[in-house]
Order: sequence, then structure tokens, then C-alpha cells
Amino acid sequence: MIAVDAARLRADFEQLASIGRAPDGATRRTTFSDAHFEARAWFAARAAAAGLELRVDEAGNQSAVLPGGDGASRTLLLGSHLDSVPAGGAYDGALGVVAALEALRAIKDAGVTLPVTLEAIDFTDEEGALVGLLGSWALAGALTPEILGSPRGGRERLLAALQRAGLTEEGLYEARRDPDTLAGYLELHIEQGPVLDSERIGIGVVTAIAGSRSYLLVFRGARRHAGTTPIDARRDALLGAARFALSVRETAARDFPGCVGTVGGIEVERAAFNVVPGCAQVLLELRAPDGDQLDSFESEVLGAARHEAAAAALELQVEHVGRWDPVVLDKSMRSAIASAARGLNLRTRELISGAGHDAQALAAVTPAGMIFVPSVGGISHDPAEHTRWDDCVSGANVLLTTAVAVARG
Amino acid sequence: MIAVDAARLRADFEQLASIGRAPDGATRRTTFSDAHFEARAWFAARAAAAGLELRVDEAGNQSAVLPGGDGASRTLLLGSHLDSVPAGGAYDGALGVVAALEALRAIKDAGVTLPVTLEAIDFTDEEGALVGLLGSWALAGALTPEILGSPRGGRERLLAALQRAGLTEEGLYEARRDPDTLAGYLELHIEQGPVLDSERIGIGVVTAIAGSRSYLLVFRGARRHAGTTPIDARRDALLGAARFALSVRETAARDFPGCVGTVGGIEVERAAFNVVPGCAQVLLELRAPDGDQLDSFESEVLGAARHEAAAAALELQVEHVGRWDPVVLDKSMRSAIASAARGLNLRTRELISGAGHDAQALAAVTPAGMIFVPSVGGISHDPAEHTRWDDCVSGANVLLTTAVAVARG
Repeated sequence: MIAVDAARLRADFEQLASIGRAPDGATRRTTFSDAHFEARAWFAARAAAAGLELRVDEAGNQSAVLPGGDGASRTLLLGSHLDSVPAGGAYDGALGVVAALEALRAIKDAGVTLPVTLEAIDFTDEEGALVGLLGSWALAGALTPEILGSPRGGRERLLAALQRAGLTEEGLYEARRDPDTLAGYLELHIEQGPVLDSERIGIGVVTAIAGSRSYLLVFRGARRHAGTTPIDARRDALLGAARFALSVRETAARDFPGCVGTVGGIEVERAAFNVVPGCAQVLLELRAPDGDQLDSFESEVLGAARHEAAAAALELQVEHVGRWDPVVLDKSMRSAIASAARGLNLRTRELISGAGHDAQALAAVTPAGMIFVPSVGGISHDPAEHTRWDDCVSGANVLLTTAVAVARG
Repeated sequence: MIAVDAARLRADFEQLASIGRAPDGATRRTTFSDAHFEARAWFAARAAAAGLELRVDEAGNQSAVLPGGDGASRTLLLGSHLDSVPAGGAYDGALGVVAALEALRAIKDAGVTLPVTLEAIDFTDEEGALVGLLGSWALAGALTPEILGSPRGGRERLLAALQRAGLTEEGLYEARRDPDTLAGYLELHIEQGPVLDSERIGIGVVTAIAGSRSYLLVFRGARRHAGTTPIDARRDALLGAARFALSVRETAARDFPGCVGTVGGIEVERAAFNVVPGCAQVLLELRAPDGDQLDSFESEVLGAARHEAAAAALELQVEHVGRWDPVVLDKSMRSAIASAARGLNLRTRELISGAGHDAQALAAVTPAGMIFVPSVGGISHDPAEHTRWDDCVSGANVLLTTAVAVARG
């Protein structure tokens, strides 16, 4: 059985981790920043050193390519992303890219020829400094003028970044690949949550990527002098918002196992020690692994908001600000991952990804699978993000073995 | 019986209200702003027009003076303040100053000579753009280098404002008056709360000015990815803060009638839709009419904070940021006010002032009394602040009648 070269993998991982590492230990490699360009150049050089051809598409996605045997007409993509959140960790995205590159090298070194072409791909802007999943959406043909018209980071930043990278907005659509040319997509990624780590399980088989909806709720009461307004004469917007935040937690814990609901912040307008809050704005996000569940979760949570507002004589305004639909990952990919792990004597469990990934864009056009490895303490998007090295190597071997099995069909 | 000239009072009130009134209707007359200087000049001109001498002390407090008869060695102060909060209403402070001026004019016009000197005084910086109660503390001899060393608005702003007004920091201490020269202090003010308005009572006799203590509480948990961190694996700082905010309300309502507790804001550090809050900072203020009650209230509320933090596995840090001791107002002043109101056929009730006033500085050195008139809807520190004109006139007449009675001893 082919296996990764753990030492080579580690050397690559550590070299990459040093690119964009700030003095505080954070990885600062947002899309098309200097550090990100440096990481991209490093990837291209490593591909060349391995004798792999480099392919860069119109969305800036770059791949190291290991051609399949004669007549191979389809491509199995293995990938993740090299960009990071503004102050992230060394593993998110990067591990998947170096493992994909190592998988190709190991297969090449073993002299094995597969019936499909393999690409180790680094997708552009997964984390969303510009758009989020920009490269994978482009490749899947899912980009629209609407998405590009109101990018998360703003139009100006998007256009400037594209120019810096030598890309054009119109060109992005050209990155689309014909689904018939794709044999599938596999991604190794850190879990970013505590489940595998707390259960001491090395490999997670991702069944679905949760959908998420986000909302701005504004509770309005009466802004009053805190010294002169008796408790029972108040219409305190913050207390309504606080009761609502607690109700989100209760609803999720009681009725929606496997879903998460989060109040990320409550902002009181012109907050002061001596003023009864008149207006409180709440950041709410709900996630669920399937659409029906997300519908019922939303309905129960927003119902509670209306209830709390009415009970406290507050006005309530709800604005829907974001929506990502849940994605179920391919069943044959799941079993391929599970049996690869079994063959390597690794314990697995199925789990849902609460975070978004390039795999959710790919899943719409080709069978997609995701392999998770444990995040120590569930920490991610943070300089303290860490995955034990043995788990990284196991994950890379599961990726490699699954890829070979899927390629052979 | 001497009475105020209601038309003259109204003309004065309206002229003053037009000074510093912004297009949105707000009164913008913070200490030593251009509009505040204009209001001060207007007051000086009105005093001169009434044939009253103007006195300005080293803290910028300015008085219209009506000398007592031969041998009058003491002064009864009637006053309030001309400064406003950054976007306040037309009544807070201003009503008390124009009523005091009108009281002196009415007595002078009646040809009555009293055995004490009367001063209609406008205190500097009651609202605290610089220090808060700056003028009344200076007059009462309560200013300290500590107070001036860390003024609410910052040192730079204080020094610049003093310079603009032709005052000096050292000079402020010279504004102190010998308590033996004072016969008392009377202040007419709007209630700023809903009690008189909702009970349809025209005159409030203030028994005490509540003490207040303010605190910054910081709840710390674990900042985590909202998509990947299951509900029961979270240490959500905001939920702890929310439970605490609700407990403050419950504690006040259940165990401390007549006291108020307010969470004015909860600020989540780096709040985002998709991040479980790791740190939440809470603005807390407690007010009670006497020190013992304030002690027990504080102990119960801070105990609840520790309890909620422990129950949610959060760390808690409590910082005491402000403290004003409660002040009981003079009993003979209270009965003088009540009997003046009775003589005018006005209904009264005793009540506690939840807001701070110049009277609390004066009460330490001379018998002090306060008369409240109703605030419609309890609104104050807001452009919508309003007191029915009949109530303003009644309040001014109670001030005048009480002053004459107190002056005659």
C-alpha cells in the first residue's frame, strides 16, 4: 500500500506555516496579501520540485497535476486552501493542501499510474476576505453577478485584489469546469470543533456541511434615565435581548440536537451606565445539517424573539442577512473514506461539519468527500489552533488511500 | 402673597430654550461650549435688566443677587444650572435657573426686604461634560485634587475648558464659601422620572438624593467557532452576562423597592455572527436612597454575578468605577416646601431623586431642599423632555413662597 512520506510532509507543513506567521504566532495570510502570494509561490515551487505540472485557472485556483494513464479523461481533485482568516492558525486549509500535494508525490514516487488525472488544488479565497469560497464556486460554475456584486469584503477590495493577482471579474466565470471532466473531490481538513478530540477518534467522516442563516434582530423599547425610571416603568431593550439570547440556547439544546444557535453579540445604542437601554441589536446565527431542520429551528427561534419582545413591550425588527444552504456529502465517498481508514486501523466516526468548506461548492457538481482530523480543544481561527502531528499524518494517509481507491473506481 | 409673573417667566424660559437648540430640537449646551457661554451672557443680561447685581465666582458660578436688609449676613441660594447633556431637553436645569431669577424679581418688584440676601445661582458643569457638579462642589468646598485629577471628561478637556472660561484649576478651590454665610439652598427641578406625571401630582418634595455605584464586570469564557462548537461544549461569555442582567432586574424588583439597578450595555469583544462570545463587558449601575441599602443591594447583585459566572464556567472580574453617596435632604426645608405648596392648593408627595443634583453638594454644608415638577412620560436628557407650563409656574411659585418663608425664618 502506498503511504505518505511523513518527514517530507512535515517539512512542507512547517515551511508553509512560517509564511505569514506574525510575531504573536497568528497566521496572517488573507487572500492576495503579500504573505498569501508568497505561500502560492511556495506551492508552485514545491510542485515543480516534485516534477508536477502547475495549472492556474482564471479564478487563481492553482493545482499540481499528476496526469492519469492513457485515455484518462477525468480528474479527481484533492484540495483545500492556502488563505487564512485575518489572525488564524497554521492548520486550517494549509494541512489539506500540503497533504494533497504529498499524496500526488507519493503516488508518483511509487510509479503507480491511475486511470484518472489527480490534481492537488489550492482554492482561492475560501475564508472570505473577498467573497468566500470564491475559487471553488468559480470552478463549480456557481458564481453569479449577484455574488460578485455584493462581496463580503466590499466591491473595492475585491476589484483591487483581483487586479493585484492579475485576474479579472469577467474572467472568474471562465474558471468553470465541465462536471463531466471531474471524477470527484476529496478534502482533508481539521475539524475546528471539539468532537473528535474529546472522543479520542482520529478520523472524522463528514456526512454533511451544515447550512447557516444569519439575522440582525433589533429590539426597541424606551431610552430612559436610569436613576429616575422605576424598574417596573421601564421598557428595557437589553433585557428583552438578553432573554432572547438565553432562549436561543435553550431551544437548540432542547429541540435541535446537532444544530447550533449563537448570539454573537448584543449592541446597545449609545450604551451608558446611567441610561436604560432603548435599542439593542442582536447578531444571531443558526446552523443545521438539513434544510427542513433549519426551517423549523428558524421558526421556533424567531417565534421566541417575537414572544420575548411582546412580553417586554418592545418592538422587534428582524432582518435576514445571510444564508448558506446545507450540503449532504456523497455516500460512496463517505464509505471510501471509512474503508480507507479501516484499512489503516484508524477509528472513525461520522460527523457534520458546522463550518463551511470548498467541498460544499464542489458537492453540487461532483461526488465530494471530506476527512476531518481532531482539533485540540476544538480551537480554530486562532493562533492556538493545533492538531497532533500523528493525526495529520493519519489524515494524509486516509486522503491518499481514499484517492487511490476512488481513482481506481 | 407674592407670586411670580408667569408671562415674564415664560418669555425668559423660551428665550433661554432657543439658545443652543439644534435643528433636531435637542438642547446642546454642554459646559463652556459656545451655546453655554451665550446662555450665561443671556442670564447676566437678564439680571442686569432686573436691576440685580451679578456675582461670578472662581468656579464660574454666576448669581443674580438681591441684597437682604441691613445686617443681613447670610445668603439663601436658589438655583440650578444652565449647562445641558450633549443632546438634552429644554427644562433640565434651565427651569430652576429662570424660576430662581423670577423669584428674586418678584420679591424685588413687591418691594419686600428680607432678612437674608437672596442669590439666583447658575452652577457650573452640573451635567458633567467636565467633572459633574463642578460648581456646586467648589462652592461647598468639596473639590479635591483627586476629583480634578481624573475628571469624567478627561484632563485635557477640563484644562482647555477652564482656560476658555478664564478660570484656573487652582482658582476653583477659592470658590468655596464659608458655611456660616449660607442660610440654605433651594432648587426647583423637573423630576426626570414618571412618578408625579403618572400620579397626576404637581409638586414633589424630595426627601433624599439616591447614591449610585457603577461597576464594569467582565465575563470571560472561550471564544470559539460558532459552527463547530456544540452547544454543550461552549463557555459563552455573553450568555453569562445575559443571565446576570436579568438577575439584576429580579433582585431590584424583589428585594429592593425604591432602588434601581441597570445594565446599561453588554459589549462583546470582537463580536461576530459566527463566533461564540469569549468576553463580555457589562456596564452596571445601582442606586439606592441610603447607604445601608446600597451596601446590601451591591452585595446581593455582585453575589449573583459570581454565581452566574461560576454556573457557566466563566471567569469574572469586577471593577468599581464610580460612587456617589446618598444624601438626605433637610427636614425643615421639606416641611417649608410642603406648607408652601399647601398654601397654594397644590398636591404634593414626597419622593426620592434617582438623579444627581447640585443640591447634593450643597446639602453637606447648608440646609438644602428640592422641589420637583412632573416630567411628561418621565422623559429627560432627551429632546422630548417636557413639563406642562402650568406645572412650571406652580413649581416657581412654590420656590418663591418657600424662599420667602425660609428667609423670614
